[in-house]
Amino acid sequence: MPDTRKYVIKFGCPDRTGIVARISSFLAELGGWITDSAYHTDPDTGWFFTRQVVTAESIPFDIDELRARFAGIARSLGAEADWKILDSGERRRVVLLVSKEGHCLYDLLGRVASGELDVDVAAVIGNHEHLASITNAHGIPFHYVPFGRDSESKAEAFAQVAKLVDAHDPHAVVLARFMQILPPELCEAWQGRAINIHHSFLPSFVGARPYHQAHQRGVKLVGATCHYVTADLDAGPIIEQDVMRVDHTDSVDDMIRKGRDVEKVTLSRGLRWHLEGRVLVHGNRTMVL
Amino acid sequence: MPDTRKYVIKFGCPDRTGIVARISSFLAELGGWITDSAYHTDPDTGWFFTRQVVTAESIPFDIDELRARFAGIARSLGAEADWKILDSGERRRVVLLVSKEGHCLYDLLGRVASGELDVDVAAVIGNHEHLASITNAHGIPFHYVPFGRDSESKAEAFAQVAKLVDAHDPHAVVLARFMQILPPELCEAWQGRAINIHHSFLPSFVGARPYHQAHQRGVKLVGATCHYVTADLDAGPIIEQDVMRVDHTDSVDDMIRKGRDVEKVTLSRGLRWHLEGRVLVHGNRTMVL
Amino acid sequence: MPDTRKYVIKFGCPDRTGIVARISSFLAELGGWITDSAYHTDPDTGWFFTRQVVTAESIPFDIDELRARFAGIARSLGAEADWKILDSGERRRVVLLVSKEGHCLYDLLGRVASGELDVDVAAVIGNHEHLASITNAHGIPFHYVPFGRDSESKAEAFAQVAKLVDAHDPHAVVLARFMQILPPELCEAWQGRAINIHHSFLPSFVGARPYHQAHQRGVKLVGATCHYVTADLDAGPIIEQDVMRVDHTDSVDDMIRKGRDVEKVTLSRGLRWHLEGRVLVHGNRTMVL
Amino acid sequence: MPDTRKYVIKFGCPDRTGIVARISSFLAELGGWITDSAYHTDPDTGWFFTRQVVTAESIPFDIDELRARFAGIARSLGAEADWKILDSGERRRVVLLVSKEGHCLYDLLGRVASGELDVDVAAVIGNHEHLASITNAHGIPFHYVPFGRDSESKAEAFAQVAKLVDAHDPHAVVLARFMQILPPELCEAWQGRAINIHHSFLPSFVGARPYHQAHQRGVKLVGATCHYVTADLDAGPIIEQDVMRVDHTDSVDDMIRKGRDVEKVTLSRGLRWHLEGRVLVHGNRTMVL
Repeated sequence: MPDTRKYVIKFGCPDRTGIVARISSFLAELGGWITDSAYHTDPDTGWFFTRQVVTAESIPFDIDELRARFAGIARSLGAEADWKILDSGERRRVVLLVSKEGHCLYDLLGRVASGELDVDVAAVIGNHEHLASITNAHGIPFHYVPFGRDSESKAEAFAQVAKLVDAHDPHAVVLARFMQILPPELCEAWQGRAINIHHSFLPSFVGARPYHQAHQRGVKLVGATCHYVTADLDAGPIIEQDVMRVDHTDSVDDMIRKGRDVEKVTLSRGLRWHLEGRVLVHGNRTMVL
Repeated sequence: MPDTRKYVIKFGCPDRTGIVARISSFLAELGGWITDSAYHTDPDTGWFFTRQVVTAESIPFDIDELRARFAGIARSLGAEADWKILDSGERRRVVLLVSKEGHCLYDLLGRVASGELDVDVAAVIGNHEHLASITNAHGIPFHYVPFGRDSESKAEAFAQVAKLVDAHDPHAVVLARFMQILPPELCEAWQGRAINIHHSFLPSFVGARPYHQAHQRGVKLVGATCHYVTADLDAGPIIEQDVMRVDHTDSVDDMIRKGRDVEKVTLSRGLRWHLEGRVLVHGNRTMVL
Repeated sequence: MPDTRKYVIKFGCPDRTGIVARISSFLAELGGWITDSAYHTDPDTGWFFTRQVVTAESIPFDIDELRARFAGIARSLGAEADWKILDSGERRRVVLLVSKEGHCLYDLLGRVASGELDVDVAAVIGNHEHLASITNAHGIPFHYVPFGRDSESKAEAFAQVAKLVDAHDPHAVVLARFMQILPPELCEAWQGRAINIHHSFLPSFVGARPYHQAHQRGVKLVGATCHYVTADLDAGPIIEQDVMRVDHTDSVDDMIRKGRDVEKVTLSRGLRWHLEGRVLVHGNRTMVL
Repeated sequence: MPDTRKYVIKFGCPDRTGIVARISSFLAELGGWITDSAYHTDPDTGWFFTRQVVTAESIPFDIDELRARFAGIARSLGAEADWKILDSGERRRVVLLVSKEGHCLYDLLGRVASGELDVDVAAVIGNHEHLASITNAHGIPFHYVPFGRDSESKAEAFAQVAKLVDAHDPHAVVLARFMQILPPELCEAWQGRAINIHHSFLPSFVGARPYHQAHQRGVKLVGATCHYVTADLDAGPIIEQDVMRVDHTDSVDDMIRKGRDVEKVTLSRGLRWHLEGRVLVHGNRTMVL
């Protein structure tokens, strides 16, 4: 995470000659100091994507003016152009949804406390109370929202979760081994901000008890997948995946234990990239620039 | 692969107290010199498995007598006991089935030629002629068996393949990127000997064009799976799997290219373990001891 | 970590025929229920190693009697035989030494709090106060022992550390990114119990600032090494190592950040194996059984 | 490797504002169709690097004219600017130096034969005759140049090797497990073109018998390093590295066998990147763009 204030430009449009020249000339004319840049052209979809990072102090006006001027550039590159300019000076707010399993929560809180992940964890919301005390020990409010089994009480619980989350207007809503399936309207409302860690190497072992499925199939590696949440269960755009070797000596419990290390590291990488504005989504695929 | 002649005992039975004592005492009384041994108890199925390697010269009689005597031990450990004694002095014969893609064939032939994989490749059978010349350059007969598209001509072709394979009574029939699906009767006939390399991390992307499926799903790792062939497509017991990182810059063709390295290495590991008698199958899972 | 009470036998001696038979018959005659066993013969040194786990309730007497009887077996296998019997019912005590960097501490405390690592962290000792509050939040005493720069004040500080550590007679003294070099007498006193995590893939980049060294050399992977501490700096027996890919875009700080995930996971694996009695040391090499 | 003819621009210079704009505007004004581009700014050295790929047919003149015009752009970006424009239409020539161990040779020849690596292997030169027949089977000339043990006969042998290599003016001279140390004058002459595969994860285990060194140190991973050859033994800029897990059951011979798979895959990746003009060297570090 940057010490110096920076503006992060994320941009995508149908590919054509001269896009890089247009954008880089625009920035060069302003005297913009580019500290990081990445480009990608997808030959299958014919789209062009870029992420550019410039130091705020090299831009002779504020971010609103930068956005206004860049809008002109974007417009000239086609009506479909899709862009956003982020301000690293705006502190990132994150809300975490948890259940009973604490490894992802412990890991994220440790990263925040040690300064590695420079964000505000605005709140932790749990459908169980197990993780309240560690959350409070980090000085973060914990909200306990119990979930019933019938659809009506689930709907009520989700309404309460939504209210608690939206009060912070977070940059990311992280399902850190939250064991409830988000209703379609929340998938919609938090599109591109709700991030889940699924405890398998998707698309293998969608749904419940993936390590049990993995054990039964006799796979030789277990994995985890960090992805944006969509209305299709475990089928949203994948941000990051990783795996770990297992063998016949590993029981389901061993797989669960070993898998936790993959889950927490994979989630933290995906979340970091999301917050740094590195993840561009097109269709159901991500570009990590 | 062993220089000194060795006997490899593979054994499985329902777990109970004293199995190791029984087997190791039997070997100790013979003066058997154990050079490698592995044990595994599976708590889920309640089965016990072991692989023991003894030097042939430490056993005071021949392998037939060893088998006869061990049969008594095995019987005393229960009617379900399942065992086999292999002789490393019997040179391993392998038949390879190929199509157009040569990377697994080139790799296996290279390993054999350099002495790394100490086997006889008795024959290579292809449903295309592409790989005939490299096979012949290694002094190995290549049989071209064209496959029609209708089921009748496929059946005829498979009958011819079966005849060619069975003439060598091979220890392994390797589907080295052979693009035809074995008929159930051959799966049956070659059970525990037919080894396939599937170009995905199973159970993801069963069937045709797995890299296309992987690209479309936007996964961040591609993989390969070496497994025993069964009548269920790509669902047999997994011997070995591995993966390689890909990212958004990789086209389908890049994934295919990168995946080849995983396929060939994974296949060669699985084949080696099979030939060394390390792979014990129970239900749909393998123990690699 | 076991729920059922178990005895763990670690045994090593010069290899000869009949060792497995002797030990397994001994256990079988007692009716010992073996839940886990591993054997290894090292052809270079000619030594045999085994680790056997039996349920306590299957043994008809207590651990002292088991030790007394096993001593006879061990004696019969040669004067050099080296063995130990651990009792899983004896809760493992661990003392952690830390400095300013908290990622390993956060990780271990999270594992303990979530029940994944079933140990008592008896105390955390720091040469800085940075990590006192998170330690206390977990209900664990933190001892601040400042280290001066001259050798006399270091010696005093180490004397104080030794006193604090030894008061708990811990099964493991973990240098969780403790940035002070243990004096030879403590290496001696804690031999086989003092575990360090070094932030490089040893033997590359011994000593200070390994990520800086790695960046300067332009390596494409960074790693971490969990090893027993000996008087030779970073040269003790390696328990576990792992690596992570980096590339030219990674600054030293990026390497440090990415490396933390490898360090903490590698340390926790090594520590777990040590506490489960899986690590047998012979010369400067470890067998993890 | 490209089907469509392309020009690859490699460029480096001290970083300043507007470089990307200058280069991309230059290309845009020509109507250049950029199919691949990458940028990197190294904060430590203050250098900027880029690689740009444009289709040849989108450039309205030939490569000589492109070079002439680009020279003006480069000059305007500073006297230190370092650049090159490659033509993918010029078929890449490679000469391989080998000894007795064939795994890297088999692997490269297989990749070339199957079309995966689209290069001309102009010649294979061996200081032993072991690999002559496989080379000839691929229709490639093999030159046997025996090396004596005294320095004079070595010098003569190297003179002969140099003559054979230089006759082809190759884009890459690959030391595919060639066990002789290049004399300084050949390191100089082939600077940036001579590529070695070292059978360890450098900087660990420089020099002879690295697997023996690795076994003795008891490491838990073995690796391979593909690097440019310089006069400092095994100390040249690293292009690619990879590792593979080993454990206490692996003898030195097992490590050698397992390591081969890492060596051949690592070498082929490094060689591909080199030939595609992806590797930019600055000081002793590489950027792979």
